[in-house]
Amino acid sequence: MELERMGQLAKAASRSLMKLTQPEKNACLVTIARNLVDNTDKILEANAKDLENGIANNMPESLQDRLRLTADRIEGIAEGVRQVAALDDPVGEVLSMKSRPNGLMVGKKRVPLGVIGMIYESRPNVTVDAFSLCFKTGNAVILRGGSDCIYSNIVLVDIIKKSLEENHVTPDAVFLLEDTSRETATKMMQMNEYIDVLIPRGGAGLIRSVVQNATVPVIETGTGNCHVYIDATADVEMAVDIVKNAKMQRLGVCNACESLVIHKDIVDAVAPKIIATLKEKDCEIRGDEMMQSYDSYVIPATEEDYATEYLDKIISAKVVSSVDEAIEHINANSTGHSESIVTKDYDNAQRFLNEVDSAAVYVNASTRFTDGFEFGFGAEIGISTQKLHARGPMGLEALTTTKYIIYGNGQVRP
Amino acid sequence: MELERMGQLAKAASRSLMKLTQPEKNACLVTIARNLVDNTDKILEANAKDLENGIANNMPESLQDRLRLTADRIEGIAEGVRQVAALDDPVGEVLSMKSRPNGLMVGKKRVPLGVIGMIYESRPNVTVDAFSLCFKTGNAVILRGGSDCIYSNIVLVDIIKKSLEENHVTPDAVFLLEDTSRETATKMMQMNEYIDVLIPRGGAGLIRSVVQNATVPVIETGTGNCHVYIDATADVEMAVDIVKNAKMQRLGVCNACESLVIHKDIVDAVAPKIIATLKEKDCEIRGDEMMQSYDSYVIPATEEDYATEYLDKIISAKVVSSVDEAIEHINANSTGHSESIVTKDYDNAQRFLNEVDSAAVYVNASTRFTDGFEFGFGAEIGISTQKLHARGPMGLEALTTTKYIIYGNGQVRP
Repeated sequence: MELERMGQLAKAASRSLMKLTQPEKNACLVTIARNLVDNTDKILEANAKDLENGIANNMPESLQDRLRLTADRIEGIAEGVRQVAALDDPVGEVLSMKSRPNGLMVGKKRVPLGVIGMIYESRPNVTVDAFSLCFKTGNAVILRGGSDCIYSNIVLVDIIKKSLEENHVTPDAVFLLEDTSRETATKMMQMNEYIDVLIPRGGAGLIRSVVQNATVPVIETGTGNCHVYIDATADVEMAVDIVKNAKMQRLGVCNACESLVIHKDIVDAVAPKIIATLKEKDCEIRGDEMMQSYDSYVIPATEEDYATEYLDKIISAKVVSSVDEAIEHINANSTGHSESIVTKDYDNAQRFLNEVDSAAVYVNASTRFTDGFEFGFGAEIGISTQKLHARGPMGLEALTTTKYIIYGNGQVRP
Repeated sequence: MELERMGQLAKAASRSLMKLTQPEKNACLVTIARNLVDNTDKILEANAKDLENGIANNMPESLQDRLRLTADRIEGIAEGVRQVAALDDPVGEVLSMKSRPNGLMVGKKRVPLGVIGMIYESRPNVTVDAFSLCFKTGNAVILRGGSDCIYSNIVLVDIIKKSLEENHVTPDAVFLLEDTSRETATKMMQMNEYIDVLIPRGGAGLIRSVVQNATVPVIETGTGNCHVYIDATADVEMAVDIVKNAKMQRLGVCNACESLVIHKDIVDAVAPKIIATLKEKDCEIRGDEMMQSYDSYVIPATEEDYATEYLDKIISAKVVSSVDEAIEHINANSTGHSESIVTKDYDNAQRFLNEVDSAAVYVNASTRFTDGFEFGFGAEIGISTQKLHARGPMGLEALTTTKYIIYGNGQVRP
């Protein structure tokens, strides 16, 4: 189907999704979960084709792992859909309603965004996940996944469409771009008439490409050059634990720590321990001269290192003379995702919270908690690193907008 | 000064504006108001130069009027700044703070956006207005006004900068692009490193250009192809009053009614009265065949007419057979700004409020009320017709974002 036509149908579908009740939407989600599990064999067959192509194209083992589905993983995806069904629906809430002196009642109501465009890479679970969150909030969605995953995606979207039809809901609530060319993706990013919001999910290159090419409003997600700052008064053991967790608990994630900042008054106490801990885990350390002085394991850091999201067993490290210098260094190099201070000092904790300009700022905790589930939203469509609309982990509310509803009895403007 | 350098300085300034207290910000605004009035002669002199150039370039009378300052108008601008000083500052409010099972306290706090880029046309009052709203919310601002207004803007920004210095606040809180070329404006729209949000204010062409060229996130404001729908059960007198007010009370504004939709069962009763009322005011009516049948004054409407924002003494008009047809026609042609239904029918009122996909949807009132002051926000930076971040009239809150602040005591992710 032509992209323009998809846009028209998705827009039309979004008008009818607006009118669905919560039980109607939840019934669809429960059907989808059941049909995913019931069609396990069919999904695995399509996924095997994607994997075969991937192997033939020398796809790295780590990407193969992201792409690979198993019966257990399909059950996991279905369970995710059931959990979304169980969440509260934010749509329809009237956030405020005030009476004006002229008698007008002006209310602000939460409503669906309309049509959401998702552009993402080769993880088939995102296909179902993104659909279920968009649908739960009354939105139609156009999915553009990676070519590596196309056979899996076609089957998954087909199961979703049939499940919607089973519930007498329009299957136009979801479209998959089977043409995964760059040109078609760019065209999709400029369909302002039919798409209300684009959400890219994937690596820095994908996100940059969407930000550069889109005329449709974008919610930028993702890249995290996250910092842990160890203040002069930090508890040494806590600092080591937090750095170890934030850097090593999971490597390829946006909320992992990529850069370490240490106050000079505590560096003698913490640097040797941190270096030993990271060395034991084979994590490369790129540090300034002071850091290098503790162990020849530490190699010199360039200015570029301080601005790099490694997503790997590498960390940069720098010693500073004050909390001011730490904050300045972080604001200059961070991607605005998550940063943490380890301190016992009340004023420095407050200053860090106030002055570090990132989506999530922590005192005495690992940056790894920046996540919709960890924050208690029950869902996550991505983590916004921009400042418009949504910042930080995005749950269901980020997939809604508001409208003003005004009740009058003949008011005209004097 | 080079644009890149302005961006750097504005970004640095935004870090220090974040730390200003409410009284400090308000003191600056009060100084600005005083200095504007004290420098009336200087402002009028610069404005006279702009007007002279405008007249030499055959600027239409209506634009000359927008550009023209007088002592009274300067006092009005200063009074606007004083009113902004008197408003509550939304920055710093913690919107929620919840304890998680692992003991983390996760809070959501309202903070400034950072650096705002304003791109607007030849109205010198916008220069002061936009600055004062951005500054009140702790943001730095880069202003790019029209070339027609450049001498006035230079003097106004100079007064603002000096007033900030008088209060020991960095004058880098505001920059004016004195180079008003298209190339420089485009460069500004792509300064993602330094500008957090762009707000264009002006005609449809300006806004389209920003949406097309910007890579910085944009809040789209403005164009309003607003509808009034007269339902079968409408009070005829109320309907005529509302149409007259929405179309004629002020012509060149985005919340004026541009298109009329009438239910066939009431058209005999209302069409002659509405036609007579608009005719008396010299308002051209472009209607379908049914509308034309009442008076030869009504000329034929094209499909394009139904999608046009005239900003003039012209209105399009169409007769429909049902509220469904009305809603469908409006959703297909509206720019998503403001629409009103005139009705006595409860169900149709509810359906119109729910199903019309616009920023402000009215029952029995004029669309002219879509305005930050009329809605009680005490200020307005523009009216958003997009769905991200802010929708409808934008007050001070639209110039803020949120950040998560997380208090821990050593938590790491298991």
